[in-house]
Amino acid sequence: MDDTVSEGSDVLLFLSRERTYLVRVRAGERFHTHKGFIDFDQVLGKRFGDVILSSMGVAFALFKPTPYDYVRKALRATQIIYPKDVALIVAYSGIGPGSRVVEAGTGSGALTSALASFVQPNGRVYSYEVRKEFCEQAAKNLARAGVDEYVVLRNADISQGISEPAVDAVVLDLATPWLVVKEAHGALKGGGHLVSFSPTIEQVVKTVGAMSVGFADVETVECLVRRMKIKAGSTRPEGVMRGHTGYISYGRKIFR
Amino acid sequence: MDDTVSEGSDVLLFLSRERTYLVRVRAGERFHTHKGFIDFDQVLGKRFGDVILSSMGVAFALFKPTPYDYVRKALRATQIIYPKDVALIVAYSGIGPGSRVVEAGTGSGALTSALASFVQPNGRVYSYEVRKEFCEQAAKNLARAGVDEYVVLRNADISQGISEPAVDAVVLDLATPWLVVKEAHGALKGGGHLVSFSPTIEQVVKTVGAMSVGFADVETVECLVRRMKIKAGSTRPEGVMRGHTGYISYGRKIFR
Amino acid sequence: MDDTVSEGSDVLLFLSRERTYLVRVRAGERFHTHKGFIDFDQVLGKRFGDVILSSMGVAFALFKPTPYDYVRKALRATQIIYPKDVALIVAYSGIGPGSRVVEAGTGSGALTSALASFVQPNGRVYSYEVRKEFCEQAAKNLARAGVDEYVVLRNADISQGISEPAVDAVVLDLATPWLVVKEAHGALKGGGHLVSFSPTIEQVVKTVGAMSVGFADVETVECLVRRMKIKAGSTRPEGVMRGHTGYISYGRKIFR
Amino acid sequence: MDDTVSEGSDVLLFLSRERTYLVRVRAGERFHTHKGFIDFDQVLGKRFGDVILSSMGVAFALFKPTPYDYVRKALRATQIIYPKDVALIVAYSGIGPGSRVVEAGTGSGALTSALASFVQPNGRVYSYEVRKEFCEQAAKNLARAGVDEYVVLRNADISQGISEPAVDAVVLDLATPWLVVKEAHGALKGGGHLVSFSPTIEQVVKTVGAMSVGFADVETVECLVRRMKIKAGSTRPEGVMRGHTGYISYGRKIFR
Repeated sequence: MDDTVSEGSDVLLFLSRERTYLVRVRAGERFHTHKGFIDFDQVLGKRFGDVILSSMGVAFALFKPTPYDYVRKALRATQIIYPKDVALIVAYSGIGPGSRVVEAGTGSGALTSALASFVQPNGRVYSYEVRKEFCEQAAKNLARAGVDEYVVLRNADISQGISEPAVDAVVLDLATPWLVVKEAHGALKGGGHLVSFSPTIEQVVKTVGAMSVGFADVETVECLVRRMKIKAGSTRPEGVMRGHTGYISYGRKIFR
Repeated sequence: MDDTVSEGSDVLLFLSRERTYLVRVRAGERFHTHKGFIDFDQVLGKRFGDVILSSMGVAFALFKPTPYDYVRKALRATQIIYPKDVALIVAYSGIGPGSRVVEAGTGSGALTSALASFVQPNGRVYSYEVRKEFCEQAAKNLARAGVDEYVVLRNADISQGISEPAVDAVVLDLATPWLVVKEAHGALKGGGHLVSFSPTIEQVVKTVGAMSVGFADVETVECLVRRMKIKAGSTRPEGVMRGHTGYISYGRKIFR
Repeated sequence: MDDTVSEGSDVLLFLSRERTYLVRVRAGERFHTHKGFIDFDQVLGKRFGDVILSSMGVAFALFKPTPYDYVRKALRATQIIYPKDVALIVAYSGIGPGSRVVEAGTGSGALTSALASFVQPNGRVYSYEVRKEFCEQAAKNLARAGVDEYVVLRNADISQGISEPAVDAVVLDLATPWLVVKEAHGALKGGGHLVSFSPTIEQVVKTVGAMSVGFADVETVECLVRRMKIKAGSTRPEGVMRGHTGYISYGRKIFR
Repeated sequence: MDDTVSEGSDVLLFLSRERTYLVRVRAGERFHTHKGFIDFDQVLGKRFGDVILSSMGVAFALFKPTPYDYVRKALRATQIIYPKDVALIVAYSGIGPGSRVVEAGTGSGALTSALASFVQPNGRVYSYEVRKEFCEQAAKNLARAGVDEYVVLRNADISQGISEPAVDAVVLDLATPWLVVKEAHGALKGGGHLVSFSPTIEQVVKTVGAMSVGFADVETVECLVRRMKIKAGSTRPEGVMRGHTGYISYGRKIFR
């Protein structure tokens, strides 16, 4: 059953915010942590939300992974995108169940799996990746996250052409997004959203410049998320925060 | 057809980021703006993404409204939640197609419609609102946004009880969220997410305090979004930004 | 006496943070506000810190202006620099009593008066301004702020040369600071600080590029100040904040 | 001479922003770093701003320490205050040459030395510290920074009374600042500034509450400083930033 851990279930073992482990449960196996091992035979049949003890008596909660857990845990083969940025990209792109989305580059498939989880079951993500080895790794990650049936992986250079017509959104996480703006315009349906994520300001200036033709409502934002330490009597923001991940630029296609 | 404006279509008339109008197109009618009127007979049959001219010759783009456009345009009967916060709430709550979500309070239905757009077609949002007049207004707004079939409105005080068992997420935008934490725990399935949005730090301290029993991975964040002025040679952040909307607190249910 | 309002005293009339008036008190005169007029004969002889009533019975506090009050109240002939940025410029430049500082451009003299207040009584600010009318206006503002004896105004283009040798710091608030970096290096003593304030990122990139020769410890920061609404039970950051004023770049001269 | 390194000079050895060493130069001695040692005999007679080579051939710049360098390098016996916060405290408190300032607690003397450097030569900082061992350590640090003649250290509990009348400013960096607000009001001259630095929001709420009597222009801010990575073609904010140090609250004394 869906709310119970069974053979082959993915489980997020939660010790603390900084210490979580995404594991696949197999009868007869163990998972070792610095706080002792977890005996999977004891995990089978437990409910998600249950708390179990490791061999050292340390408590771990059993959580069902969300798409964001997969994002956080995806192989670090490429610099992955942050959940906050995924959230804003989804918000700005108007993506939802049934959306047809083109994405590039696939990388490890972290953003891809998040997009796929929002467009399922009838939508599709067409994800372009020029490097063959990333394509293969992403295919594995998407299968593991259980969203591979909603994704079409294309081992191709997106700047050479987009095969899908009239898509709802194009999402770019590329080193040279400005080279793809014209292709994206051709692939989008009228009013469709182009969203681009870039770490540097020079990338943004070039991309937004390229969007000055054929797009309206063009906007660039950055998003800062600050964690709070909440404790009656000593509440304060956390001392260290992420100062930058990237800028998000977007616009909506107009016909001209 | 879906990509063409027809009788009864909702259209977002886009003049600039600050000047957009969400209208329902009716043959024979006009919509008046300070830049001249729009003749709906000229709009009918146009594609979304087309640009038309007002009676004063000013260009307006025709966009298909996204859930966020509805959020932005919802009646300002209550202080509505910002798109950036909706985005993070959706991200943190693990909501997606098929999710069963409890929400309170409904208010004007802005957050409700956004949640509904993500859980459709098989999921449901059960939205509690104690004030009858808000319930009625929200019902209209949800119908207008085309998501009413995915929402069950409950004109009831959520602190008196939640009728739905084993939901995936509970989302609170209430003045006294800490009074609902125990009820939320009862309604959630194991590992399910509680997300609470509150403007003041005192609300957060009380709510997070109440979550110290029965929840793990409890965290509070605030999100700052800063717009950039992108123009080659004079790029800079915008001079004025929103300094605060509210804090987002969340946690995952554990059995104890 | 210094703590009492006398003929000719400058007084900051304080109604609220948003409503303050910097006036010079003269016997027999009145100052009119939208909350009634202030009778200066009643103000004479009062202590700084006293609260008086306007003709409409509204309370105004009598404050002695600080350099920052003069900064805030300087004629808005040019876009003036914010107190937070003045504070960081002073901090980063190592300016203090006795420092010899070169500044450009003078503008309305707002930053000049703040710098002068920190270097007095033995230090000097040499302030360059190419536009004659600004020089004249700044001279008046500096006299009004009582710091003119610590400032030498130069109606000259700083990019054509700096007359003062071996200064402690050079502070630039110019449209094209990169054109002055070489001159600044020549004028600074070893280890002296160059500080440049610029609104746009392109100005920063050019200026920091020019500083790659002859400067060490080169750094660029931006400073965001957020006001809090402090009230037991409803504490939160203010809803609107300044999102950007400018970037502050600095470095210390090395001999090469 | 002041611009040349001589026997007993303090020198900031600068390798990179993260690697600086505040040393006192003594003939015949060496200073060891992970990049080789510095031979002080080669440093004597050099100009501040000169670049020398370590025994491993690595370049170090010789800088004259600013008050902020002393702040940064003060013994970490207590959590020291950040330069950005020192800058704003000085700005908000209207402190300058000649100011008479009361401060508590002294701690390691980091803030004390910065305040002293701004009020010299005629002003004074009266610094209260209840813990004897901190007093003694601070006395050494202030002497080292060369500002001890401008400071009067008081080994006393400031909440039991302030000896100095009619001071220009009171600066608090205490765990319980609200207990000192009444004493501070008594010590300040009319219009004088009270500035309090506190890490937690609960401290701020209590302190600002206590300031509701006897103070006007009461305001609380926090200051976020973000470093930029400036490099043509890849300019961006730094990935990690300080998310919080403390809140700064201030107000001006009124007579009531």
